[in-house]
Amino acid sequence: MGADAKRSYAVVGVGAIGGAYGARLAAAEHPVHFVARSDAAHIADHGLRVDSVLGDIVLGPDEVSVFANPADVPPVDTVLICLKTTDNAALGSILPALVREGTTVAMLQNGLGAEDDAAAALAAAGLDDVTVLGALCFVCSEKVGPGHIHHIDFGRVTVGEWRPGYEAAGVTAAVQALSDDLAAAGFPVSPQESLGVARWKKLVWNVPYNGLSVVLDTGTKELMADPASRALCGELMHEVVDGADACGHGFDRSFIDAMMSDTIDMIPYAPSMKVDYDTGRPLEIDAIYRRPIAAAATAGVALPRMSALADQLTFLDTRNRA
Amino acid sequence: MGADAKRSYAVVGVGAIGGAYGARLAAAEHPVHFVARSDAAHIADHGLRVDSVLGDIVLGPDEVSVFANPADVPPVDTVLICLKTTDNAALGSILPALVREGTTVAMLQNGLGAEDDAAAALAAAGLDDVTVLGALCFVCSEKVGPGHIHHIDFGRVTVGEWRPGYEAAGVTAAVQALSDDLAAAGFPVSPQESLGVARWKKLVWNVPYNGLSVVLDTGTKELMADPASRALCGELMHEVVDGADACGHGFDRSFIDAMMSDTIDMIPYAPSMKVDYDTGRPLEIDAIYRRPIAAAATAGVALPRMSALADQLTFLDTRNRA
Repeated sequence: MGADAKRSYAVVGVGAIGGAYGARLAAAEHPVHFVARSDAAHIADHGLRVDSVLGDIVLGPDEVSVFANPADVPPVDTVLICLKTTDNAALGSILPALVREGTTVAMLQNGLGAEDDAAAALAAAGLDDVTVLGALCFVCSEKVGPGHIHHIDFGRVTVGEWRPGYEAAGVTAAVQALSDDLAAAGFPVSPQESLGVARWKKLVWNVPYNGLSVVLDTGTKELMADPASRALCGELMHEVVDGADACGHGFDRSFIDAMMSDTIDMIPYAPSMKVDYDTGRPLEIDAIYRRPIAAAATAGVALPRMSALADQLTFLDTRNRA
Repeated sequence: MGADAKRSYAVVGVGAIGGAYGARLAAAEHPVHFVARSDAAHIADHGLRVDSVLGDIVLGPDEVSVFANPADVPPVDTVLICLKTTDNAALGSILPALVREGTTVAMLQNGLGAEDDAAAALAAAGLDDVTVLGALCFVCSEKVGPGHIHHIDFGRVTVGEWRPGYEAAGVTAAVQALSDDLAAAGFPVSPQESLGVARWKKLVWNVPYNGLSVVLDTGTKELMADPASRALCGELMHEVVDGADACGHGFDRSFIDAMMSDTIDMIPYAPSMKVDYDTGRPLEIDAIYRRPIAAAATAGVALPRMSALADQLTFLDTRNRA
């Protein structure tokens, strides 16, 4: 990369996350190459449109670089993985095609363990000297059609560098670089000393609202309006912090109150797992529930409400896709 | 009661339970007076019909004694309360109308605390010298129309005498008398040393299958076929035994395996709470969940999966009846 050149990106997955963040990096004049599956031809023909609370972006067919095959993507500085975690088995073929010495890989995914998946895929390909980041998106966004994203609200990103066991890495150069680029593209960004703490903090929101919206067929507004479901949301949040504490990634429980009041103030919104369920897609039960439960169990702490919710979701997911 | 006279009964509530048990006592030539609400006129005009795995029973209009008002019922030896626990506020008016010195009251209801409700209603009316029993029905039965019950499977009854705090009373004369009558009428009966143990044992079945059939919109067969929901049923059962142990009403956990395999062998069947939900009736959340949870909490033990399920049911019940 030359002194004045902007860092280049491969954005894998052009859904709610890849579309919203990738388009904004492209609009900020970073070279951005999208990797899409079913939508690649549509985006090549019609471009990419993001209706966004931060200002709409339209990348015409001449302005968007999109590929169906990762092997066709030119070399890039940073790879943003914006797939659902349920697609992470594909990392074994995707990452070796995009990564070379010095590449940074950032996982814009939910839950716990996405970076472990990436590191395992890289190690299996003999790519040991790759920086792996987690970038956690606090965003209401949904794909409304091929190449058409609706970024409804929020957009904050927390960025941290992965170490085995989510040991804190501090704010590294790679963390700072991605944070700078996302901030310059218009997103509120918080570089993180500890990716483990950041991931468990995000679970505080994801665990109650994703699962309960599916099981109770409802939304965040209704969950916070009813005293019983609101109490259950709070208890699930406390279980998440129990797990974080057990795993050495704890934080102050005042964070729970902040999440609860943020959610009450949020524009009514279907959590991503509810959208996945209603469209018949697999649910991110492993990333959001099973892996945190397993990590806490290894540290000697049971998370029974989360476990019950995970079992319910597994039943529903199996039936939904039968 | 004369030496050869059969004990007389008032059966309050002519639904799945009152119909199935009351008709069989009447067929066994006990004087039985039914107390019905909306169905009293229909039963008086058309009689009572029970299609039963133990043999069908039809009581014609000339053979059935039915009242809308408990005050009109002749004096009886034993009152069987076969209402839903959600109707127990009515006990304050019903019991004083039916109870005199020496009457036995038996609660054929789900969950924990029905006898406390009866004892409180009796005490408030100055009726302190009344024997209160619990009679727990392990039966698949449903009301299919006014005065028309379908007794699908099973029918075993466990009978125990209540003491404050569910202290064990032993097999008293009243327990033996009701047990004898139900056995002679054709039901398998098990007199109980401890009503507390009997009630917590019944919760082992009711807690998982009633709640999960509502939350997951399914039945016992599907819950036992899916590995995740089957595991959750087992974990909920273990929580129930945790609660029983804490309250001093514990029993061997091999009972859990028996309940699981009994349920696998059961004719596919909608638990009563599922029927209540689907017909818009209030759910027995207090009796089956909140009271056992509170009793265990008082004894210092949390039942988190049951609590989560209770909160989910409360949310659904509120929405369902809005």
